[in-house]
Amino acid sequence: MPESTHGPAPHPAPSGAPTPPVAGRVLVTGGTVIGPDTTEPADVLVENGLIRAVASPGVLRPAAADETIDAGGCWVLPGGIDPHTHLDTLIRGHRTCDDFHQGTVAALAGGTTSIVDFCYPEPGESPLAALHAWRARMLAQRPAADVGVHLVLVQPGEDELAELPRLVAEGVTSIKVYMAYRGRRMTDDRGLLRILQCVAPLGITVLVHAENGDAIDLLTAQAIDRGETAPHHHSHTRPDLLEAEAVNRIAHLARVAGARVYIVHVSGSTALDPIRRARAAGWDVHGETCPHYLVLDEHALEGDLATAAQAVCSPPLRRAADQDALWQALADGTLAMVSSDHCAFRIADQKITEPRFDCILNGLPGIEQRIMLLHHFGVRTGRITPRCWADAVSTSPARMFGLLPRKGLIAPGADADLLVFDPERRRPLTVADHHSAVDHLPYEGIEVIGAPRAVLAGGRIAVRDGRPVPGLAGGGRFLARTPSVPHAEEPRPAAPVLQTT
Amino acid sequence: MPESTHGPAPHPAPSGAPTPPVAGRVLVTGGTVIGPDTTEPADVLVENGLIRAVASPGVLRPAAADETIDAGGCWVLPGGIDPHTHLDTLIRGHRTCDDFHQGTVAALAGGTTSIVDFCYPEPGESPLAALHAWRARMLAQRPAADVGVHLVLVQPGEDELAELPRLVAEGVTSIKVYMAYRGRRMTDDRGLLRILQCVAPLGITVLVHAENGDAIDLLTAQAIDRGETAPHHHSHTRPDLLEAEAVNRIAHLARVAGARVYIVHVSGSTALDPIRRARAAGWDVHGETCPHYLVLDEHALEGDLATAAQAVCSPPLRRAADQDALWQALADGTLAMVSSDHCAFRIADQKITEPRFDCILNGLPGIEQRIMLLHHFGVRTGRITPRCWADAVSTSPARMFGLLPRKGLIAPGADADLLVFDPERRRPLTVADHHSAVDHLPYEGIEVIGAPRAVLAGGRIAVRDGRPVPGLAGGGRFLARTPSVPHAEEPRPAAPVLQTT
Amino acid sequence: MPESTHGPAPHPAPSGAPTPPVAGRVLVTGGTVIGPDTTEPADVLVENGLIRAVASPGVLRPAAADETIDAGGCWVLPGGIDPHTHLDTLIRGHRTCDDFHQGTVAALAGGTTSIVDFCYPEPGESPLAALHAWRARMLAQRPAADVGVHLVLVQPGEDELAELPRLVAEGVTSIKVYMAYRGRRMTDDRGLLRILQCVAPLGITVLVHAENGDAIDLLTAQAIDRGETAPHHHSHTRPDLLEAEAVNRIAHLARVAGARVYIVHVSGSTALDPIRRARAAGWDVHGETCPHYLVLDEHALEGDLATAAQAVCSPPLRRAADQDALWQALADGTLAMVSSDHCAFRIADQKITEPRFDCILNGLPGIEQRIMLLHHFGVRTGRITPRCWADAVSTSPARMFGLLPRKGLIAPGADADLLVFDPERRRPLTVADHHSAVDHLPYEGIEVIGAPRAVLAGGRIAVRDGRPVPGLAGGGRFLARTPSVPHAEEPRPAAPVLQTT
Amino acid sequence: MPESTHGPAPHPAPSGAPTPPVAGRVLVTGGTVIGPDTTEPADVLVENGLIRAVASPGVLRPAAADETIDAGGCWVLPGGIDPHTHLDTLIRGHRTCDDFHQGTVAALAGGTTSIVDFCYPEPGESPLAALHAWRARMLAQRPAADVGVHLVLVQPGEDELAELPRLVAEGVTSIKVYMAYRGRRMTDDRGLLRILQCVAPLGITVLVHAENGDAIDLLTAQAIDRGETAPHHHSHTRPDLLEAEAVNRIAHLARVAGARVYIVHVSGSTALDPIRRARAAGWDVHGETCPHYLVLDEHALEGDLATAAQAVCSPPLRRAADQDALWQALADGTLAMVSSDHCAFRIADQKITEPRFDCILNGLPGIEQRIMLLHHFGVRTGRITPRCWADAVSTSPARMFGLLPRKGLIAPGADADLLVFDPERRRPLTVADHHSAVDHLPYEGIEVIGAPRAVLAGGRIAVRDGRPVPGLAGGGRFLARTPSVPHAEEPRPAAPVLQTT
Repeated sequence: MPESTHGPAPHPAPSGAPTPPVAGRVLVTGGTVIGPDTTEPADVLVENGLIRAVASPGVLRPAAADETIDAGGCWVLPGGIDPHTHLDTLIRGHRTCDDFHQGTVAALAGGTTSIVDFCYPEPGESPLAALHAWRARMLAQRPAADVGVHLVLVQPGEDELAELPRLVAEGVTSIKVYMAYRGRRMTDDRGLLRILQCVAPLGITVLVHAENGDAIDLLTAQAIDRGETAPHHHSHTRPDLLEAEAVNRIAHLARVAGARVYIVHVSGSTALDPIRRARAAGWDVHGETCPHYLVLDEHALEGDLATAAQAVCSPPLRRAADQDALWQALADGTLAMVSSDHCAFRIADQKITEPRFDCILNGLPGIEQRIMLLHHFGVRTGRITPRCWADAVSTSPARMFGLLPRKGLIAPGADADLLVFDPERRRPLTVADHHSAVDHLPYEGIEVIGAPRAVLAGGRIAVRDGRPVPGLAGGGRFLARTPSVPHAEEPRPAAPVLQTT
Repeated sequence: MPESTHGPAPHPAPSGAPTPPVAGRVLVTGGTVIGPDTTEPADVLVENGLIRAVASPGVLRPAAADETIDAGGCWVLPGGIDPHTHLDTLIRGHRTCDDFHQGTVAALAGGTTSIVDFCYPEPGESPLAALHAWRARMLAQRPAADVGVHLVLVQPGEDELAELPRLVAEGVTSIKVYMAYRGRRMTDDRGLLRILQCVAPLGITVLVHAENGDAIDLLTAQAIDRGETAPHHHSHTRPDLLEAEAVNRIAHLARVAGARVYIVHVSGSTALDPIRRARAAGWDVHGETCPHYLVLDEHALEGDLATAAQAVCSPPLRRAADQDALWQALADGTLAMVSSDHCAFRIADQKITEPRFDCILNGLPGIEQRIMLLHHFGVRTGRITPRCWADAVSTSPARMFGLLPRKGLIAPGADADLLVFDPERRRPLTVADHHSAVDHLPYEGIEVIGAPRAVLAGGRIAVRDGRPVPGLAGGGRFLARTPSVPHAEEPRPAAPVLQTT
Repeated sequence: MPESTHGPAPHPAPSGAPTPPVAGRVLVTGGTVIGPDTTEPADVLVENGLIRAVASPGVLRPAAADETIDAGGCWVLPGGIDPHTHLDTLIRGHRTCDDFHQGTVAALAGGTTSIVDFCYPEPGESPLAALHAWRARMLAQRPAADVGVHLVLVQPGEDELAELPRLVAEGVTSIKVYMAYRGRRMTDDRGLLRILQCVAPLGITVLVHAENGDAIDLLTAQAIDRGETAPHHHSHTRPDLLEAEAVNRIAHLARVAGARVYIVHVSGSTALDPIRRARAAGWDVHGETCPHYLVLDEHALEGDLATAAQAVCSPPLRRAADQDALWQALADGTLAMVSSDHCAFRIADQKITEPRFDCILNGLPGIEQRIMLLHHFGVRTGRITPRCWADAVSTSPARMFGLLPRKGLIAPGADADLLVFDPERRRPLTVADHHSAVDHLPYEGIEVIGAPRAVLAGGRIAVRDGRPVPGLAGGGRFLARTPSVPHAEEPRPAAPVLQTT
Repeated sequence: MPESTHGPAPHPAPSGAPTPPVAGRVLVTGGTVIGPDTTEPADVLVENGLIRAVASPGVLRPAAADETIDAGGCWVLPGGIDPHTHLDTLIRGHRTCDDFHQGTVAALAGGTTSIVDFCYPEPGESPLAALHAWRARMLAQRPAADVGVHLVLVQPGEDELAELPRLVAEGVTSIKVYMAYRGRRMTDDRGLLRILQCVAPLGITVLVHAENGDAIDLLTAQAIDRGETAPHHHSHTRPDLLEAEAVNRIAHLARVAGARVYIVHVSGSTALDPIRRARAAGWDVHGETCPHYLVLDEHALEGDLATAAQAVCSPPLRRAADQDALWQALADGTLAMVSSDHCAFRIADQKITEPRFDCILNGLPGIEQRIMLLHHFGVRTGRITPRCWADAVSTSPARMFGLLPRKGLIAPGADADLLVFDPERRRPLTVADHHSAVDHLPYEGIEVIGAPRAVLAGGRIAVRDGRPVPGLAGGGRFLARTPSVPHAEEPRPAAPVLQTT
């Protein structure tokens, strides 16, 4: 939802402190590995930032390791991957309050070792130039976790589209478009189809903010005219039918072009329908939801302005029944991923630019809480299995966004991104003890059961005993990602080469 | 489809020849492992019949192994699991011509290291007693691969149903029922619901032959009366609508009882519809298809009697468009498994008991060809990915039938069942060179590209250079399987214990 | 749901009183005719029991008529047709308390001028003989309205099926089968398919009681065993999934045979799904619901035994949301008809044979209230239009059951069956003032707005000023009905001959 | 599809010849009336332009009539209503070649007694002023049949929308919008929603040209750039997915607003899906198709330019399977209407403005052939019943567009618009003998069986023995139509006043 530019001065290099060195050999012992199909007691050997072996307890000798991490009683997951964040991003004149350093420290604290954020070219700017500038700025902020970007396109000209193969070559294999926010971010249908045509042969995945923006703009203007300005009117002006319509539209345009689309922040039952239909027909349509749609509902938009404003996001929070539908969609595979859509504005001085709903900056924080919330409200309640949870927060995003087999699974050769998660550890969710710069939390006061004990990021120990270690700045690298295999490709001989899915 | 009893004299113990010893340590090097989410170059260390480590090339030293298998240029898959075979089974007075020794040698030759066959209690016999007798007989035949059984129930009394917990305790966690063949195998709806009620809390999966038997019996009798006796009339008397009806019926009965059902040998598009509907609604409904439905069609029922009779099975072969629908269902996950439904009768003296279609014994061979056919017609043509292939022939059956994490994946602690598959090796499918006792092959004359190079079964090298090694008899063990986790269970705290899915 | 036989002594001929003569010419003036597509002020001229002309006010001169009926302020509908009643029927040893005389007087009092009841052959009895006996008995009871019968078949032999063409020739063009009540009424699937095969070329419509009887019998026995005997347990043992299953099954069997089926008493949303699917696919599947499913819900089964027992019927009353679904299905055409399923047992001495739910005779009265209830709760609330109402209670049953163009519409040549319905007339529904012999009414105490002012039946004035006139006995005739036009027939040239639909 | 303005000089008043007088009393005898639910032998009495009585043969005396029409052996239908024509309309600089006189003579020759054409305000022009001018111009052309108009809106301002109640008051109760042709006719989504909001409370029906214009514009420009200019490329640039998308979009927007939409010229199976979904959900969504989509397919776009150009229309002709789907949709009620979309350009000097597909003016003639084609290819083949045919060409358009009960049915008080259709009369379809000014016919050379024998329009005899009579000019009147009853209105008491459905 942001409209940002590259932003101001780069983040000051954090104190010159060295990043924690990649330990030569680390052995994670005694845990239960959540593999893609089962859970099993296994030790994991890490060397030079990579996973080198997964073995039965006892096969790998601790003596051979420089350091041993005790994972007893814990799940061991591949490090979390958050494919949808908005760090240090200028939106409607305000910059989100977490930069790439602080945001990634928060990510690591919650078990997420990779994020994919967004690069917004200026109007008329070359996407490639924008990427280079954006990448430089991100890295200059010394991220603590690995960071990639989706490229945002609005109404690109042919020159800009012609650069897409070079973006792929540089590891940017996904773009994002908006079907809402005319005049700022929205791409019209002609532009959408043109983009989809260009990305299809390149294996670029298209993330889509699917809401019918033009219709919503009308409803919004009418509500404001009627004096309906309170936060809960935000919901009324963005009915779920207008989300479902947009999902169906982009699915059809993508089908015409032969492209893959990924619907971001699916908010409820109505929008799930066209996704199910498309998938049942074999179309290359995917979707994610976010913790706030799973855990909160429209009642959060009631109450005093400062409180209600904290729950303003687009699409808006829906009804309780929509939560059930989303959990079901995760369980049955309709939606395979949960991102945070972390978009943090301080309530004190940023989020409410004027006391009416259309002047409240959209977005909720969640980069640190995502994996814990999904465990607490999903795994512990039996709504989803541990396997589904690990998929939703790591394996599926890796598969969708070209990070497999490097990330998202615990296997030899993969990056040594590991989350040692203690399912009985209690953690209160509170701004008094989190790692984002934001001054509020929509989950304030909830104590979850289950939290990270340790996190390895690229072989470095980033979290010990539930706490980020010092000196994480700069440990993250830029994520170069691979394109997707075309969906409906011509028959091809199989070859036993490395490939995803 | 069989009606067999325990059978006559047990198979003579094959020559007392020792089974091949489990090699102390075997290293499979240079291959590309098809893991559950990706493919990766990795070596696999096997010790004492178990996988002990999966590691990047070079981490594990060949010197430490007693034997090294070169998997260069090959896929390495978990050993195939065939969840639907009919070995040494008495059906309408004829015994299928492969016993548990010969059938499992054929299985190994095709890359399948585990099968799940069926145990048929005599009328009035205690299921537990039947299991014990059946198990003894199977093992007395000295199977070469691991063998489990589904228990067949017809119209069980409460005494028999009361034994189900003990069957689960002995590792029989699935039963089979027939909705066809009244008077021989068919269970009526009351019996079906009662069985489903009993299995639901036990986590027993119910395999279902879904055809409306009563309606088919009428159509069959009418066709015979009209003199329509040729094999192709077999198809006309078993229309796909009557398969779809039965699928829908059992899905509803299962839903009432809260049980999990698994539709065997789904034959085409029409029967897929109720499966899709049920799954979309979150019901615990699953299905398999078989190679013959994917590769053959109803035209195989034309021609001279001896040829056409070879293609007689139930449900019958459908149209070419149904093949497409089945491949699509595999690709999109509607069907997750492919079994052989291997049910071999010699054409020379068994299959045609009288020259009319209803006197042709049903069933096709395929235990040896299953994995190769799926690779040749599915993977090589691009209809399914290598990953989907490995799922269909191994991982998904393991998940469905309580063999995970012991089988169906390549991970530490799992049984050392490995298939080293050379995707470029050519193999003509022919009775002149196969390992079943049957005297015909519906795929006769097809040369597939892609065949096993080596197979490890429980750590033993069972196939070398594409050929079964001597002395395999008795290498197989009885498969004790775990029950499924209840589908719609009450909220439960997650615990990091070993569990499936 | 009845199991009756022809019954005991015929009804004593009622007093020899002559039936009211058919007036030579009657003019119904000043009303608003609800035609099949619109409503219009029009006068209707009746002569010799037939409608002779429909004309603008003033065209037809009152002077030319022997009698004039003032329909000012009223709707004029074709007389109601109730296609599902159970008069003088022996069910589980009890005879419903309204015979064909009393029941049809009640029908007329409510605006219904034709009913179609059921003829139950004795086991082994020839259907034709049964029809003749049944018809004689019905007419001997001197019905006040026209009466037809559906023939009930259970497990007919070929001899009985061979009589169907003769039944059609005698005007019995519909049969009924039960998928529940094994041992009494239920037909198994083989029998169902055989019946459907036989009726398809004859244009016979098959009414189906669609519930999976075998599954229900199990649930019922289990509930009784657990001591769950109260009326509300009746609902628990007949879950809607088992109704939906049966609907889907009969739709498939009918499709195999090419026959038309009509699902009686559809009780709610779940059972509507397979009807919608079938109709969307162009299958010849139809359905009705009844006033009690539209107006009452499962809460009626609570309370003391005598009260709750009054609400026991099969399928059972469902939830309030099911009422909404049924109204919607009427409005959108999924269901085109509303019958009463009038099946009246006295609560004082009949309905509760033992104080447990499975010993309560099934069935509710409603023959007199049907049209008023549908008007009050449907038309007045805007759920359905007046046009839909007239369709549901008259035109659609006429179309479905071979009474068009003789009945069900107001057009020249049609029978002079007319309902002059005053939409503002108030009528309390109460046993203190109704015309059935039954001693309770599930709608007791409701005052509806809208009631008949006058009724013409075959040209006779049967109701004046809202009251049946004396001497109605014997005014009814036997309804000989025409078969349906085959649904998926071969292309045929159109010919401008009289035909339905 | 037109972009026209009011056009040049009004049509010269045709020779001052008087229109045929309305006969005092006409009796149509001996025919079989296709009523809304049945067919019946009946005579129809017409007086002063209205139907006065429908009566059994013999009731009405010929002696009382001034003229008698022999309808022996014929169907008698309500006069055809064609709700979608383009007479005397300026499209991309070319005026369609039939004016309101000639076009309506052709209509009458084919049995159509009423048309609803379109009024196109100039940019900035008041809708009401446009209507007045348009109406004057139409009537000045002395139409032979009754003519109404739908108002075309593009991007109306609030001033223009504020006039809608006055348009309703003048009998214009439907508007049309285009989702294609950006820059000429297309309304964007904000405009669509605004229009839908305004019309909903007024009962205005919105006709929608549903194709995603922006996407099509891109595909068109790309095809031209690639040199793909032949007529068959027209199809490739307008894929059915883009029609289905637009249908789904407008259905959602209409649902948000609570409005009724009517999809014009549905071209095939894919676009039917969202209509079915919407209708199944109870949404107020309707659709029509046209004869050319039922009878022709994309192969008509092959061949030489002059021939292929004759088949260019939008949406384009689809595949043969789409024809089947459309017939099925008519039969099952998904589509209730067939319009001609008559849009005639001379091939000699108009239709091909340049030899590339996007410079071929869109549109096919059919105003005269519509009813005969539907009879020949639909009724005679058994695809639809005579009843369905009469509905599609007359009753349903009357119901949809506010002409009931004045038109569309044969009942007292209705306009005396009657079509006496001889089902055995042979008529070659050819430009050598038709009544339009157009110089080609896509059906040239087809001889249909079944054609009008006589036509009454407003009581005047317009066609005798299959030929239009002289002096028809000016017989047509302007059609003032009533608004629709709101679909999801609040509960309302029923009142026996004249109303439609």
